Amino acid sequence: MNNLRHAEALQTAPASAAPGVGELAGLLDALRASAAQRDRDGGHAAGEKQWIADAGLLTLAVPREVGGVGARWPDIYDTIRQIAQVDSALAHLLGFTCLQVVSINVWGNPEQRARYLGGTVEGRWWWGNAVNPLDTRLVARATSDGGYLLDGQKGFCSGTRGSQMMTFSAHNPATGNPVFGVLPTRREGITVHDDWNPIGQRQTDSGSVSFVQVRVEPHEVLKRADTPYASLRTLVSQLVLTNLFVGIAQGALDEARAYVTRHGKAWIYSGVDKATDDPYLIQRFGEMRLQAVSAEALATRAAWLLEDAWQQGPSLAAETRAQVALATSEAKIVAHRAALDISEKLFDACGARATHAPLALDRFWRNARVHTLHDPLDYRVRDVGRYALTGALPEVSLYT
Amino acid sequence: MNNLRHAEALQTAPASAAPGVGELAGLLDALRASAAQRDRDGGHAAGEKQWIADAGLLTLAVPREVGGVGARWPDIYDTIRQIAQVDSALAHLLGFTCLQVVSINVWGNPEQRARYLGGTVEGRWWWGNAVNPLDTRLVARATSDGGYLLDGQKGFCSGTRGSQMMTFSAHNPATGNPVFGVLPTRREGITVHDDWNPIGQRQTDSGSVSFVQVRVEPHEVLKRADTPYASLRTLVSQLVLTNLFVGIAQGALDEARAYVTRHGKAWIYSGVDKATDDPYLIQRFGEMRLQAVSAEALATRAAWLLEDAWQQGPSLAAETRAQVALATSEAKIVAHRAALDISEKLFDACGARATHAPLALDRFWRNARVHTLHDPLDYRVRDVGRYALTGALPEVSLYT
Amino acid sequence: MNNLRHAEALQTAPASAAPGVGELAGLLDALRASAAQRDRDGGHAAGEKQWIADAGLLTLAVPREVGGVGARWPDIYDTIRQIAQVDSALAHLLGFTCLQVVSINVWGNPEQRARYLGGTVEGRWWWGNAVNPLDTRLVARATSDGGYLLDGQKGFCSGTRGSQMMTFSAHNPATGNPVFGVLPTRREGITVHDDWNPIGQRQTDSGSVSFVQVRVEPHEVLKRADTPYASLRTLVSQLVLTNLFVGIAQGALDEARAYVTRHGKAWIYSGVDKATDDPYLIQRFGEMRLQAVSAEALATRAAWLLEDAWQQGPSLAAETRAQVALATSEAKIVAHRAALDISEKLFDACGARATHAPLALDRFWRNARVHTLHDPLDYRVRDVGRYALTGALPEVSLYT
Amino acid sequence: MNNLRHAEALQTAPASAAPGVGELAGLLDALRASAAQRDRDGGHAAGEKQWIADAGLLTLAVPREVGGVGARWPDIYDTIRQIAQVDSALAHLLGFTCLQVVSINVWGNPEQRARYLGGTVEGRWWWGNAVNPLDTRLVARATSDGGYLLDGQKGFCSGTRGSQMMTFSAHNPATGNPVFGVLPTRREGITVHDDWNPIGQRQTDSGSVSFVQVRVEPHEVLKRADTPYASLRTLVSQLVLTNLFVGIAQGALDEARAYVTRHGKAWIYSGVDKATDDPYLIQRFGEMRLQAVSAEALATRAAWLLEDAWQQGPSLAAETRAQVALATSEAKIVAHRAALDISEKLFDACGARATHAPLALDRFWRNARVHTLHDPLDYRVRDVGRYALTGALPEVSLYT
Repeated sequence: MNNLRHAEALQTAPASAAPGVGELAGLLDALRASAAQRDRDGGHAAGEKQWIADAGLLTLAVPREVGGVGARWPDIYDTIRQIAQVDSALAHLLGFTCLQVVSINVWGNPEQRARYLGGTVEGRWWWGNAVNPLDTRLVARATSDGGYLLDGQKGFCSGTRGSQMMTFSAHNPATGNPVFGVLPTRREGITVHDDWNPIGQRQTDSGSVSFVQVRVEPHEVLKRADTPYASLRTLVSQLVLTNLFVGIAQGALDEARAYVTRHGKAWIYSGVDKATDDPYLIQRFGEMRLQAVSAEALATRAAWLLEDAWQQGPSLAAETRAQVALATSEAKIVAHRAALDISEKLFDACGARATHAPLALDRFWRNARVHTLHDPLDYRVRDVGRYALTGALPEVSLYT
Repeated sequence: MNNLRHAEALQTAPASAAPGVGELAGLLDALRASAAQRDRDGGHAAGEKQWIADAGLLTLAVPREVGGVGARWPDIYDTIRQIAQVDSALAHLLGFTCLQVVSINVWGNPEQRARYLGGTVEGRWWWGNAVNPLDTRLVARATSDGGYLLDGQKGFCSGTRGSQMMTFSAHNPATGNPVFGVLPTRREGITVHDDWNPIGQRQTDSGSVSFVQVRVEPHEVLKRADTPYASLRTLVSQLVLTNLFVGIAQGALDEARAYVTRHGKAWIYSGVDKATDDPYLIQRFGEMRLQAVSAEALATRAAWLLEDAWQQGPSLAAETRAQVALATSEAKIVAHRAALDISEKLFDACGARATHAPLALDRFWRNARVHTLHDPLDYRVRDVGRYALTGALPEVSLYT
Repeated sequence: MNNLRHAEALQTAPASAAPGVGELAGLLDALRASAAQRDRDGGHAAGEKQWIADAGLLTLAVPREVGGVGARWPDIYDTIRQIAQVDSALAHLLGFTCLQVVSINVWGNPEQRARYLGGTVEGRWWWGNAVNPLDTRLVARATSDGGYLLDGQKGFCSGTRGSQMMTFSAHNPATGNPVFGVLPTRREGITVHDDWNPIGQRQTDSGSVSFVQVRVEPHEVLKRADTPYASLRTLVSQLVLTNLFVGIAQGALDEARAYVTRHGKAWIYSGVDKATDDPYLIQRFGEMRLQAVSAEALATRAAWLLEDAWQQGPSLAAETRAQVALATSEAKIVAHRAALDISEKLFDACGARATHAPLALDRFWRNARVHTLHDPLDYRVRDVGRYALTGALPEVSLYT
Repeated sequence: MNNLRHAEALQTAPASAAPGVGELAGLLDALRASAAQRDRDGGHAAGEKQWIADAGLLTLAVPREVGGVGARWPDIYDTIRQIAQVDSALAHLLGFTCLQVVSINVWGNPEQRARYLGGTVEGRWWWGNAVNPLDTRLVARATSDGGYLLDGQKGFCSGTRGSQMMTFSAHNPATGNPVFGVLPTRREGITVHDDWNPIGQRQTDSGSVSFVQVRVEPHEVLKRADTPYASLRTLVSQLVLTNLFVGIAQGALDEARAYVTRHGKAWIYSGVDKATDDPYLIQRFGEMRLQAVSAEALATRAAWLLEDAWQQGPSLAAETRAQVALATSEAKIVAHRAALDISEKLFDACGARATHAPLALDRFWRNARVHTLHDPLDYRVRDVGRYALTGALPEVSLYT
């Protein structure tokens, strides 16, 4: 399904080669082998996360000047997508580590970038996420030295369990503004709870985190910028989700093909001998693929626009950034629908026996269903519609 | 959602009143209360099945002359639909007990009808189903007295676990034809296995059954008729499934409404104060209801056609029967899609927090997904299409 | 496609037999024969309207006590639907004559009912419609005798050209309220313009009408009631539109079947010999029929609810009326979509040669497209959604 | 909507600049101004075709070495798409002139390429198309000098009327094989008929052509190659159609936006003041745009794959060619649906007054409807499905 990528790869010299990407196939096989079992068990995938770290993937978004892979966004998302085909929970963790790396990159000062991005390279750090300005239960009180004390809690802290580092946002009642910063996950006073129990995406470690008198050093405080360039961070995040959806769609289609090839029998009244000759089954695969390639094409288009904007650096114009936001929303909507539809139709393709629980073939739908609810689809369609009707580009928000 | 039914009830004198239907609300509440937990646990719902038996529902399809409720088909399906709204697995068990009652009715001789239908009234029997002519692993050898000895096994024997009686089909290698009959589930040599473990419809007790030297008495042998009237049995079965789908669709919509009313918050960028004022949420509910009422209207239309055909008795013409088959397929297709779509969109209405596993709100989709795979949707559409294109009515088959 | 109606007809004694309905087939054939040509020409169908009048259809909604057919609403709509299958413009004219008859029935005093309903029977009157309270360009000035003088104009006056009688609404600047009344179309000062030139529904005579010093006699003034019963008038109107959509859907499907049967050739790469064996063509017909029967089932359901409400007369409760409004909106939405989809897909079924302009097979889509724009579909879905989400029934409005 | 193209343009040096493309805006305005009138009139657009010739667009596909623009395929299709936004009939004529240029390029010998491609540059030739091997009514008899005499006729000869040159295929009864060649349209014995009268695409000049004793000189005979490279010709043709669909979709969306901006009024019950604030209207525009951008993204993806394959020249591998065929089918299906859906929904956006016939806003749907019937959509979906299910790439055929 990577025709476009390959075509484009022919046109452009690769900026880099991701270490370990050569062995991505082996990693994918290993993740696929235990995916159904780990979906059932939920909880923390310590071993599997180590494999990903060992494959060198944690520095995909870390610039080459500090030793990272420094891959282009289309290549980063392609990697995330491939992992999402077999395990969308772990793909999410990788994507969100890339996101925290970007947070440091756009909000950090040179010293912070050196320390945390360099640290990610040296320490193979997984990053957790406790940034969510809408959740104000975590309170920050300034200390006299420019640091803060944190008390309270955060929910949906994806990737924090098992991470080495984390980013956070907290509510500062003295100013009414949010405070952002970086913390080692083992900092005293931090407790990561094992309370993530959803119907899908069961290993994203998105439980809650409690903070009791947690010390934030002055050099750990991030200064959130709101330039068009810095706010690309939100689009990086949205394209992580988008590519998870694309990966789920592709993975469900792959499973359907594999299952039918292996187990498919022609329907008794079909008039054909083999399932693969059934005209209606063929048609179903056609429609599934059409959704998958539409989603992939739009995701690729958005990734190239992001890459182009990213390369422009801090001078990026607001309108260029907004065009990336528009393309990102377009891709996300189409991918959202593709993931849900294909993961449902997988069963029409495979038939009744595919509903045997140990196969866990419903995990694609459950994963898609959980992950497509971060923000309402309808309001993303509204943004696209406003542009189409009035030419108004999406404004910077928590989701666009 | 029962406007049509009520309108029609005004036009026609009720044939009967189902005992216990007055207390259906209490039964529904009790089933709803434990549905999520029982979905998680799977297994056999002995207590809940007793409540259904106590409500007098097991004789809905038993003629009044032997003491049954003798309800009209639209009323029987309405009852099944209401139960399916809260628990589509137990609704399936009730529907399939009605189906076995019909099997006796159309295949049994007067003595068998008296014994087994009367027994259902007196003994409050649940019936299991081991009739599946496509599965020929169960072998019947004729004995000299007109009975048989059974050896082998059957799969997908819905309702057999915990039943008092069962019907079966077996392969007779001497004639090449199937043998049909009735057995007490506790007959020596029968073992009902606890091996039903699907992603949905987890309490339909559809595991496998083994038979070792199981004796079938001559008076237990059913003579399958293939008249248009007798083959209404297949349509009774298909309309059970159809109404389960309608019930799932309605139940998912009810849950969505209840959840949003209780927990819904207006989206941060919606510009409205209450979720119930959100224009896009309102639209979603509109589209969900449109699917549910379309499915219900077609199911009701098919049920009345079935009732009319059923009343014609053994003289029923083949073409009239085929018209019922066509209407049944039309209803089943629309209901199939309604159940899947609404149970998926329930989450778009309720939002991310509704994916918390203990709520088990995904059970509607999983139930719909498992149950909509008995036979391929595409071939049912083909039947409808053939009629629309050439006027050819559906032929009698295992599914139509 | 009238299975449900037939089934119900078996259950209920017919209230009446429509004169001429026995010959409906002949009328339909005659209308079908010239429909393509008349679609091209547009303008007024004087001869064809005379056929409809001669068939006795203009009094379908006139009560039997004044000599009309007094048919039940499901039967009236069935007749309109059948005509719409071959000519949705003339079906609209018939439907709107029924609507004006209802206006007299619910707004007129006994004397007016006797004069105008009786006159419709004796004079075989076609009625035009200049009632549209949103268009306030027609001004009514009270005269000292209780009558009015009308000056100004009205647009979209369906059926006024070629009619004998018309209803109107006018703006009374002295009171700010609308005035309603009845006029002979030939009343001095009335000019019916030949300015209706749309892309479809080209013979509904929906042009504009000018009024210069037009005298309204006191006995011609209607007193609009706004009781639940009187406001059924709006639902009568909406169900006319709904059944036109259903008729267009069914008519397009009929044309597709007839064309494929007569001209269809198997696609070169299909592997089948006859078009009617093409699996994908069969599937298309299946999907088209599913939309048509869903629309028809909901239209029939709404018609029975209307009939039931209508029979309750002036004592009709507001909530009962609102339930009819809800069912009407549900039917109209589904029928709207069926008409557009089937009339578009007709070409996928028939192939490229069916686009030859003289065949005018696009008239189904153009008719559907014009007629489905009276009020926005989205706001009708909103009404359904509000009920599904909050239980709020539709309020009485100009369209519900 | 050209974000992707622009992004890619940044990555790749332009091969050329199309003469006159700078003035494309003026041409588009001029075509748009008379499009509605010309849709009504049908017939031949001599003046408008001259504008296109004057803009230098007829040599877009002619290699630079013989003086043509030699544009890349993505740029050629972008030009066709832009013209299709305002006039899809003339865009088709331009696309098919490019197609005949490609026929010469891949089937002609060096001398023929020099003569006909050079002639296209010097003479600003429009090319007509009488190549259709399925239509065998045109018979070729070999003459002793290596030429042929043609007798018979051809249908659907797009662009032949008003052309200077044409390509043809004819049936050779002596060999059973088709003969291909080039003719000046004014060659003695050729009569181009004015018999093209469809419901849409009314100015593609796709009438029939008669041949009576028409002389084909030996040097006018083309030798059809069936290498993967030469058979790219079919994909060039299919992508012309695809981009017409994309252009129609975009053009309909543009018209909808322009109409609503100029004439739109808020719906009486919407609760908003301006149509552009209507949440449901915004949503409709969002959905329309999503279809348009999906189609455009897939069309662009396919065009780049074609360009890449084209650049490989005669050594092109069959599998690479098949990948282009697959991507072309994917794009064509999505574009087909986008064109139909958007051109229908345009009216839901604009409302009832937009159906006034002189506006001819239905021309987008009629154009889309006629043009999307060259070959059945279902069999293109089958090709995509076969690949998705079994990995089998599309075979070379008349349409893939």
